[in-house]
Amino acid sequence: MPKEESKGITVAKEKDIAEWYQQVCLKSNLAEYSSVKGCMVIKPAGYSIWEAIQDYFNQRLKHYNVKNAYFPLFIPESFFKKEAEHAKGFAPEVAWIANKDPGQERLAIRPTSETIIYDCFSRWIRSWRDLPFKVNQWCNVVRCETEATKLFIRSREFLWQEGHCAYETKEECEKETLIYLQEYIDLCKDLLAIPLLHGKKTEKEKFPGAETTYTIEAFMPDGKAIQAGTSHNLTQGFAKSFGIKFLGKDEKDHMPWQNSWGVSTRLIGTMVMLHSDNKGLVLPPNVAKNKLVIVPILFDDTKDKVLKECSKLKDSLEEFNPILDDRTDYTPGWKFNEHELNGVPLRIELGPKDLKEGKVVIVCRDNGEKHKVDISKAREFIRKELQSMHSRLYDKALKALQSSMVNVSDLKELEKSAKAGKLSLATFCNDIKCEDSMRAKIEGVKSRCIPFDNELAKKGSKCINCGKEAKVNVYFSRYY
Amino acid sequence: MPKEESKGITVAKEKDIAEWYQQVCLKSNLAEYSSVKGCMVIKPAGYSIWEAIQDYFNQRLKHYNVKNAYFPLFIPESFFKKEAEHAKGFAPEVAWIANKDPGQERLAIRPTSETIIYDCFSRWIRSWRDLPFKVNQWCNVVRCETEATKLFIRSREFLWQEGHCAYETKEECEKETLIYLQEYIDLCKDLLAIPLLHGKKTEKEKFPGAETTYTIEAFMPDGKAIQAGTSHNLTQGFAKSFGIKFLGKDEKDHMPWQNSWGVSTRLIGTMVMLHSDNKGLVLPPNVAKNKLVIVPILFDDTKDKVLKECSKLKDSLEEFNPILDDRTDYTPGWKFNEHELNGVPLRIELGPKDLKEGKVVIVCRDNGEKHKVDISKAREFIRKELQSMHSRLYDKALKALQSSMVNVSDLKELEKSAKAGKLSLATFCNDIKCEDSMRAKIEGVKSRCIPFDNELAKKGSKCINCGKEAKVNVYFSRYY
Repeated sequence: MPKEESKGITVAKEKDIAEWYQQVCLKSNLAEYSSVKGCMVIKPAGYSIWEAIQDYFNQRLKHYNVKNAYFPLFIPESFFKKEAEHAKGFAPEVAWIANKDPGQERLAIRPTSETIIYDCFSRWIRSWRDLPFKVNQWCNVVRCETEATKLFIRSREFLWQEGHCAYETKEECEKETLIYLQEYIDLCKDLLAIPLLHGKKTEKEKFPGAETTYTIEAFMPDGKAIQAGTSHNLTQGFAKSFGIKFLGKDEKDHMPWQNSWGVSTRLIGTMVMLHSDNKGLVLPPNVAKNKLVIVPILFDDTKDKVLKECSKLKDSLEEFNPILDDRTDYTPGWKFNEHELNGVPLRIELGPKDLKEGKVVIVCRDNGEKHKVDISKAREFIRKELQSMHSRLYDKALKALQSSMVNVSDLKELEKSAKAGKLSLATFCNDIKCEDSMRAKIEGVKSRCIPFDNELAKKGSKCINCGKEAKVNVYFSRYY
Repeated sequence: MPKEESKGITVAKEKDIAEWYQQVCLKSNLAEYSSVKGCMVIKPAGYSIWEAIQDYFNQRLKHYNVKNAYFPLFIPESFFKKEAEHAKGFAPEVAWIANKDPGQERLAIRPTSETIIYDCFSRWIRSWRDLPFKVNQWCNVVRCETEATKLFIRSREFLWQEGHCAYETKEECEKETLIYLQEYIDLCKDLLAIPLLHGKKTEKEKFPGAETTYTIEAFMPDGKAIQAGTSHNLTQGFAKSFGIKFLGKDEKDHMPWQNSWGVSTRLIGTMVMLHSDNKGLVLPPNVAKNKLVIVPILFDDTKDKVLKECSKLKDSLEEFNPILDDRTDYTPGWKFNEHELNGVPLRIELGPKDLKEGKVVIVCRDNGEKHKVDISKAREFIRKELQSMHSRLYDKALKALQSSMVNVSDLKELEKSAKAGKLSLATFCNDIKCEDSMRAKIEGVKSRCIPFDNELAKKGSKCINCGKEAKVNVYFSRYY
């Protein structure tokens, strides 16, 4: 039997969040590093969270009539080169295949699939009747990272979904680009209890080939932001490069308007880092496969009775997919620690004393509160408590996000505030070269987004870096 | 509007099955060739069949407590080399990554994941308490094919699931290797209406690194077999190569016993080729996303009434996910052809005359039969008819499979019979070199399997090729 000390988290989140995060992922069996540099293994406990995200999002996609499909892993080099900005943006990260057929061009492993998909669109889209055309794929992508691997957050290969749509009108395209962003916001809120900052990316930070990139940004307890998903309005750039045309109602040729949007397994890391604590993983109830664990408190003389009642209880709580931990070679305390480490939202303790009283003890993973509840009322209590727990997690994180937002008025203040772990709102010219120069001056800080509710800088205000006229308000912060 | 002639299948299945198959896949929008040599695009209609297979099989995996996970796409060269037979078997098909980090070894793109997964097993499996250890992954794999691409049947990249289990005892391992084979047989029967031949692979044809490979073989109307899935008993070969050990109940180190098993998107091609006809795709009802289409027969004076009734009908038949084809710029005939091409199992026609009688016409995709049914009884009729259709498709294919099986007693007879499109049972020595020599003599014919119910050759019988003592009975045939 492993020792109790070696199983648990040995570093405090407040003290060394990097080491703490790694321990949580490893010790709660979400994932591990593989023998391949930069690649991770997603273990069953981690993968089940991804499946919960897939199930949720597939339901939402149906609502918009987006259909799942699958496109090749390999992309011919010439496709990449067709859209100049796109090619330039992804060139440093692309992995290439070594086996080259004689006379054939080089093949890239997809870092994203705009080019291979839009090659198909150029054949599939013919008439206004074919529009809107909407596909999505769940797949692996590869980006050769130079930065160190961080489980779920940064790895050479990751899993994601990428949606790709083409529309008849500019307005419809922009409207839906924002709808998918809103879907990501809802997914994060409803499933993962993650509050977000959202807005537009700056010119410097937008997707290579996009006209506008919208982003969702989560904010971690150590004062770093995580880009958690993006939705790009591509307008007609790719349509032009790939020759996508449709015959309009006016019997003339037109180019469609396009968007693409994606979220990845990064969401899992974001959720883990945000909610978990020094006991281990804290799982928002909606993504927990097993929403509760029943731990019988066993004594020799009452063992059979207690186990029988626990088994009955398990059956009556089937909707929560409960674990009954009836192992006899572990103490209740050891089990409590293990299930807390694994993030099971609720624990039910049932011993002979409880049985006599017709009650169970229900313990919440997030705040450790204990509730004595009539067995007959357990189901209703659990239903409500899981909802409350979800709200508690979300509200706590929202409060932290809101309290981290500050306004800054000069570069020094921005640097100080960002390095102190704040989301710092500053006026900015939105010029690429200016952002480059800023980044050189303040190491480890990047623009996150231009907030929707406060997009334009006040007339007459100056860019915090170059001093020229400011065009927008931008949040800057440290980042993952 | 495209012309009616150009939409449909223009070649008869009996005449040119290769061209016919390609037309069915392309024209019913299941898949298409991509711009990358050897790779295919799975379009939404095709991908929804894969999702149906995934949903079905994930439910079955839960039953055996097999858990989904995800392992890296890249496999270090040294892992491949650890199991000599495995390395040798896959070497010609492996795609390699060109970007090599200085000092790092070459990386392969997974053709199958035994090696990368068993490297994990060597860390994860410690004690008999960890066994059985069962994981599965749904992923893409890459095998550089030299033969021509055939949509779903043969392509450089394909999607599959691969299950990997480790057990405490030899007996448990063998038992479960056969259980997963049986699950594949059930999947093919219950979901895809595919009857199968099943058995053991010969020594020559077994999986590189396996002790025994069990296989399911479907039989196509042109007299060729398709290997549709395999389950390998790996015994302890990989455990030895990867140093997988567990502490037994006896407090001593032991090696676990392992199996691996997989089915791929090839199943989709097998199903299409087996059931479809000269009107296009025939989909077994259990994998059809839309199990029926309602086509209103519209005349100016009764249009509103008919459409209203159709809409009511659609709502009441929601469980079958019906399409209501109320497009006004296509004739009913044009619609009939299109939905037949796309394989929708049932068509409901409703016109003013039917409405007056309180009836609908229901047409079966597979046999073209028309039934006049009371609207009030439509739901019950459809439920039963979908079941009947499934049985009809299965029974028809089973009859074809059974009638193709013959016994042959010498090599000439085998060649003649196999080339005539029969599954030919012969006595065989099961020696690798003998099978090599046979293959050189009879082009385009391979051993398919050693049938369970007739495994051992009669005592004293001779190998059909070398004339030495025969050990087993083997089915030979042409193949995909």
